[in-house]
Amino acid sequence: MQQVCVAAIQMACSDDSQDNIQRAMEWVRNAAGQGAQIILLPELFSGPYFCKTQQPEYFQLAEPYAGHSMLTRMQSLASELQVVLPVSFFERAGQSYFNSLAVIDADGGILGRYRKAHIPDGPGYQEKFYFSPGDSGFQVWRTRYASIGAGICWDQWFPEAARSMCLQGAELLFYPTAIGSEPEEPDIDSKAHWQTVMQGHAGANMTPLIAANRIGREQDAGVQLNFYGSSFIAGWDGQLTAGLSRDAEGIAISTFDLAQLRELRAGWGLFRDRRPELYQDLITY
Amino acid sequence: MQQVCVAAIQMACSDDSQDNIQRAMEWVRNAAGQGAQIILLPELFSGPYFCKTQQPEYFQLAEPYAGHSMLTRMQSLASELQVVLPVSFFERAGQSYFNSLAVIDADGGILGRYRKAHIPDGPGYQEKFYFSPGDSGFQVWRTRYASIGAGICWDQWFPEAARSMCLQGAELLFYPTAIGSEPEEPDIDSKAHWQTVMQGHAGANMTPLIAANRIGREQDAGVQLNFYGSSFIAGWDGQLTAGLSRDAEGIAISTFDLAQLRELRAGWGLFRDRRPELYQDLITY
Repeated sequence: MQQVCVAAIQMACSDDSQDNIQRAMEWVRNAAGQGAQIILLPELFSGPYFCKTQQPEYFQLAEPYAGHSMLTRMQSLASELQVVLPVSFFERAGQSYFNSLAVIDADGGILGRYRKAHIPDGPGYQEKFYFSPGDSGFQVWRTRYASIGAGICWDQWFPEAARSMCLQGAELLFYPTAIGSEPEEPDIDSKAHWQTVMQGHAGANMTPLIAANRIGREQDAGVQLNFYGSSFIAGWDGQLTAGLSRDAEGIAISTFDLAQLRELRAGWGLFRDRRPELYQDLITY
Repeated sequence: MQQVCVAAIQMACSDDSQDNIQRAMEWVRNAAGQGAQIILLPELFSGPYFCKTQQPEYFQLAEPYAGHSMLTRMQSLASELQVVLPVSFFERAGQSYFNSLAVIDADGGILGRYRKAHIPDGPGYQEKFYFSPGDSGFQVWRTRYASIGAGICWDQWFPEAARSMCLQGAELLFYPTAIGSEPEEPDIDSKAHWQTVMQGHAGANMTPLIAANRIGREQDAGVQLNFYGSSFIAGWDGQLTAGLSRDAEGIAISTFDLAQLRELRAGWGLFRDRRPELYQDLITY
């Protein structure tokens, strides 16, 4: 047995950065109190989802990775609670800006950084205006409790990202998210589509997947988004083991036996039977 | 508008090949009578699922692709009904044997052949004893009604296969199947896992997916399998548009507007935002 308890935190995020961070830290304490060892916060939780519109002043929200003020606070919290925190942050790097994630181990040390590879662009989700496409590639970190991979929001739609992390040995996949309504297409509700695609990654890789989304209505310069929450955890067979509502803050929490999952994966044979020599099309458009 | 009506046929298969083929042809007539233009039969429907055990006499069931007796009959039927038939068959090729599929266009001509790439192996599913791993690569055919891709059973677990066909322009994905119980692990029911992984392919590629499974109990040399049917069709968002039960023969049928789906895919941007230069891990183990 190699049990690990994971949690996704679902919260609303306001324009008040200090308040967001304070509340996020309280949620982390709450989850740790329930036994969670790896705790995921939503994408860019320390501010509003500013990509609703294209406004240059929002670049001021970015900070360099080294010495990042919010990450430093999260490192202290991780060390105090002995928990692993994959933390989403807005990174300034020279003249470039990335939608990034740092993995803080249970001793408070940072294991590394991932830069979001897949950048969306559409009404209400103007990310190509703010973020360069990530250059870090997909990564897996050996934390105290498990080897984990993490993608960021739009990455969650790409089977390639999940497979790449699992091929590198990820035992759990984490996806911080900010997704909700489509402001110019009110008839589209992508919640089921969004969940199903990630459940597919979990099932195809026989690897649990944890997704944390924000809730609430955010409005800016005439563009309004309603974030639909629905944070969830999917097990090795793609079925939900925990899930939250569309409109309440909370914690989704599940426990997995990594040793049992390793045996299940090997016995089912999906990785054994891959045919990499037939996958050349995947590295093309 | 570019509407196309697709169907999956779910049936039981006995040791009587002529009866299986006769009944399959009746189901195809039935589906065509309901308006289906592309009709999928289950994997290896013309016989029992002989891979339950390892018995060399079953190699006698294979025939060469050219002039294959069952395919010839299906060509006549396709031409008569003006329907497209992706047809699973056991192929003998020189000294090799493949689990193959021929795509018969609505004029009765064969557009080409696919050889199953991913070969399972486990209690009750001894396919590595019978089939060489397919050498054809994943293929897409321009039929009269749509450009289609097809995988065969175990292929359906691999995101790489679905993605490869969609990158080549597949507008619909077809998966003939023979899956059911696990004879040495009676507690495992893979039905939800099986559906979820394919729903994930449909959603991730925003491409409808049609899966046809057999039903019934088959027993051979002490090994018994209960095929769980549950044939289904998933739409562009991965949600089911049609589905059958675990234990009754029948037809799942759905209609899609390929022009609308093309616009949805482009507007959502999943193919635009791929990062092939970051996917090198996928062409390795």
